[in-house]
Amino acid sequence: MPGEPPRAIRILGLDPGLRRTGWGLVVAEGNRLSFVASGVILSSDKEALATRLCQLHEGLSERVRSLDPDEVAVEETFVNKDAQATLKLGHARAVALLVPALAGLPVAEYAANLVKKTVVGTGHADKRQIQAMVRVLLPKADPASDDAADALAIAITHAHHRKARALLR
Amino acid sequence: MPGEPPRAIRILGLDPGLRRTGWGLVVAEGNRLSFVASGVILSSDKEALATRLCQLHEGLSERVRSLDPDEVAVEETFVNKDAQATLKLGHARAVALLVPALAGLPVAEYAANLVKKTVVGTGHADKRQIQAMVRVLLPKADPASDDAADALAIAITHAHHRKARALLR
Repeated sequence: MPGEPPRAIRILGLDPGLRRTGWGLVVAEGNRLSFVASGVILSSDKEALATRLCQLHEGLSERVRSLDPDEVAVEETFVNKDAQATLKLGHARAVALLVPALAGLPVAEYAANLVKKTVVGTGHADKRQIQAMVRVLLPKADPASDDAADALAIAITHAHHRKARALLR
Repeated sequence: MPGEPPRAIRILGLDPGLRRTGWGLVVAEGNRLSFVASGVILSSDKEALATRLCQLHEGLSERVRSLDPDEVAVEETFVNKDAQATLKLGHARAVALLVPALAGLPVAEYAANLVKKTVVGTGHADKRQIQAMVRVLLPKADPASDDAADALAIAITHAHHRKARALLR
């Protein structure tokens, strides 16, 4: 008697940024990965910080509702050169972690170099190499921007590592 | 004919931190300030970051509901020495800005040295001087911790500067 078919898991990858937060949804079925959608949520740099965080919160809440992911993966970016940029990134990452966690979804975090290693094979890959490998791994994907490609790379990373990782919730 | 009595404004000050977020509520009526309550919202450092942000979100949402502020003021802290600490602070500040903004409240931000200058008279005051001046300005206040005293100092700063500042919303 054949076993049950592997369950399809909808994985939402997020590449947080205050100005641009990339998102990408893939479906993992056993070892097969398929592209569903990707895009970018923007906040206006003419608005006050609290308003920009509301814009990200609203955009991300809408994506979580409409894309209906089972699990969420967020890049553990680490900016060192500029404290002001690091603080801004912290604000955007907080929204990216908070929105799915408040919706009761498991949220995993992956370091940027693990994402590069998983997708390209080396922890020192550049943005072009990531984009190229995302297109190889997800032939139907046509990410409109680096941020969307990075978000898909994070979702791919989670698909590879999710069984080995204890999820947060 | 005497003018109308000045309207009482409930001001919630927030001193964000991932482990401890201080809060303090004061009422400003014309030039009179009075203490209402203060305290600290904790997140457990044994939990994952997404869970800790949910704890802060929940604690802060509860305080906003029960304290019913008219306006909120958040410290614009700036950590420079340690990128990891700066990133953590960014996460906590995002929740402190987002929760009242989502509730439709105006949120103002004040630099730490403006808070010190307003409350103590110099931008280089230490924690003990702030605590002492908060007790002078709000005799009924008995803040249980530095974080609660700092949050009251931020609320006092907003009471002094609110008319001059364009609020965010």
